[in-house]
Amino acid sequence: MENFIMYNPTKLHFGRGVMDGLGKVVAEYGKRVLLVYGGGSIKKNGIYDKAIQQLKSINAKVFEYHGIKPNPIIEDVDAAAELGRKNKVDLILAVGGGSVIDSAKIISITIPVNHTGWDFYSGKAKPKSSIPLVSVLTLAATGTEMNPFAVVQNKATQQKLGYGSDLTYNRHSFLDPENTFSVSRDYTAYGIADLIAHSLEAYFGAGEATLSDKLVFAIINEAKENGNLLLNDLVNYDLRAKIMYAATMALNQTTMYGRVSGDWGVHSIGHILSLLYDVAHGASLSIVIPAWMKFHKEKISARIAFLGQNVFGVKTADETIHAFEAYFKSIECPIRLSDIATGKESKAEILKVMNLNKVGGANHKLTNEDHAKILDLFW
Amino acid sequence: MENFIMYNPTKLHFGRGVMDGLGKVVAEYGKRVLLVYGGGSIKKNGIYDKAIQQLKSINAKVFEYHGIKPNPIIEDVDAAAELGRKNKVDLILAVGGGSVIDSAKIISITIPVNHTGWDFYSGKAKPKSSIPLVSVLTLAATGTEMNPFAVVQNKATQQKLGYGSDLTYNRHSFLDPENTFSVSRDYTAYGIADLIAHSLEAYFGAGEATLSDKLVFAIINEAKENGNLLLNDLVNYDLRAKIMYAATMALNQTTMYGRVSGDWGVHSIGHILSLLYDVAHGASLSIVIPAWMKFHKEKISARIAFLGQNVFGVKTADETIHAFEAYFKSIECPIRLSDIATGKESKAEILKVMNLNKVGGANHKLTNEDHAKILDLFW
Repeated sequence: MENFIMYNPTKLHFGRGVMDGLGKVVAEYGKRVLLVYGGGSIKKNGIYDKAIQQLKSINAKVFEYHGIKPNPIIEDVDAAAELGRKNKVDLILAVGGGSVIDSAKIISITIPVNHTGWDFYSGKAKPKSSIPLVSVLTLAATGTEMNPFAVVQNKATQQKLGYGSDLTYNRHSFLDPENTFSVSRDYTAYGIADLIAHSLEAYFGAGEATLSDKLVFAIINEAKENGNLLLNDLVNYDLRAKIMYAATMALNQTTMYGRVSGDWGVHSIGHILSLLYDVAHGASLSIVIPAWMKFHKEKISARIAFLGQNVFGVKTADETIHAFEAYFKSIECPIRLSDIATGKESKAEILKVMNLNKVGGANHKLTNEDHAKILDLFW
Repeated sequence: MENFIMYNPTKLHFGRGVMDGLGKVVAEYGKRVLLVYGGGSIKKNGIYDKAIQQLKSINAKVFEYHGIKPNPIIEDVDAAAELGRKNKVDLILAVGGGSVIDSAKIISITIPVNHTGWDFYSGKAKPKSSIPLVSVLTLAATGTEMNPFAVVQNKATQQKLGYGSDLTYNRHSFLDPENTFSVSRDYTAYGIADLIAHSLEAYFGAGEATLSDKLVFAIINEAKENGNLLLNDLVNYDLRAKIMYAATMALNQTTMYGRVSGDWGVHSIGHILSLLYDVAHGASLSIVIPAWMKFHKEKISARIAFLGQNVFGVKTADETIHAFEAYFKSIECPIRLSDIATGKESKAEILKVMNLNKVGGANHKLTNEDHAKILDLFW
């Protein structure tokens, strides 16, 4: 087992009605608030009103930046940072899913500096401070509510990258499962695929960590047992709560302790599909996971089979891959690229961007030749 | 699922050689250090020397309090607090197992006040501040390294009670599995029984929390798979590390999120045996667990059976209880009180103290009549 430090600075408030405590928490950091959100769905489902009510209760001065895209772009980060900087905000309140909270993390370290947020991704700059960030999560999927990671894309450089530091954690995250009631059936399913993918990135990471393996199985099994039930009962509080909690646990570091690292090869490939065809993040992962496993099957067949034994009760690597495909299909997530985005005519374009981004995992690295082989398995 | 706040302020440093960073962490809090430890085993195994070396490297002024007993007593807490108070210490460094760290937690809130540490247990006083506490753990068992709980006994009132508040967390805990190499075979086994018991207190607590159940199974299975191996190979780093990490996870709140509460009936009974006969904590639990399950068998047979299915692959409640007994025997933990402490002639005495302490769980409460029935199952 590898050495590790177990610590997470985020205070997570989970459950029905937790937003009632939002104003008090915001007030701890100040009254000048940069409110960041997405396309406006929070105005339809009442979450915006609840947030505003909480901010009014503490007489906060609110500066709004909205329009963060589902696949968030660096231009929004820079524009929101400019708004926050100009108005000398005390904190950021992000209300939304992964794209909004990820963007807000980079906004929080961009406000104190005089350069674009992308400089953190490119390695040109390192953050020295951050504006406190408080979040209200509206989508169970990415785990961003309790980790430092932020994925943003840059169309100009054809990159979609992850970044995180000790400065990019939420101070507080508010998770009311009722706030996910209005998430559509397909995005609910993509969230489930995403949390399963996060668990798998830990499982296929480097280093032996047997308790971590068991925690991964626990989380995937929880998602599997409740995922289909939820898709048939989208306003069931308890099922929403179970999936929301599982998504947090899948990427709040719990599954990583004792490992050298996670892999993240599947994610780095998935990001390319989102970048090129605006595929929803979770949908990109349910396509890449089977292909990635098929490609690695010979090299790590026992490892894949052990996963299948503990999640699906099957025996072999082939059966495991088949079971994952069947499960993703059962929750109506795509398992082939042709299902949702594009046909084989796009192969050359995808391969070019895969090569450019040097996609691959920390544990299972991939060459350009490997890219081509994995790509073949997308259709 | 119940509402919860997920947050743990302890920073846990886990792995080989982590004590190399101890001096730097201590220095963050000051140079006047109250060093608390037990009967002196840390002087034989070199851990004392390592700690002193780290303290010297930062020119710390050290005040030593040693002699904390395996079943810690309030008199030591008060005497150590007096030493710390008199010398205006900046922080406490606790080096030892559960008894030392638990005592240090109460010392940390007793130093700033003018009354005995027991006043926190009796409810007479509430802590308002605490002296920062840094710990080096030398025994994998109680989970005290990453939770707020502290169990101390009071012979005068014939009580052994637990206490905890937001002020009684370690700021930092240092866990080097090598620091447990010299723990004897029997105490290693008692630590395994303890961590299993903690997992069960969560499992038998109030409220449905399905992911928590799975996390409990993960932790117990990890202990079970590695426990026997470790007892035959006491200086195996990886096995020591696995048990040490499992013990932390069994009681750092991870298994409690989403539940109304844990039960803690088994622990409250076990404490009586330690109080009266100085039975090692883990050994008291391996005696109480089977008796407790037998007593509750009719009422919660499905729950007990579900546990057995997921931990031992058995089907019924009876088989589950039998499997736990067999497992504890396999690691040479006692399963009957006559195995280690006392015969049936002590029944009246034990019953009196059980009644006096009103032992029972938060979920499964126990009457005086229940006490007598459970007691009958100890032999």
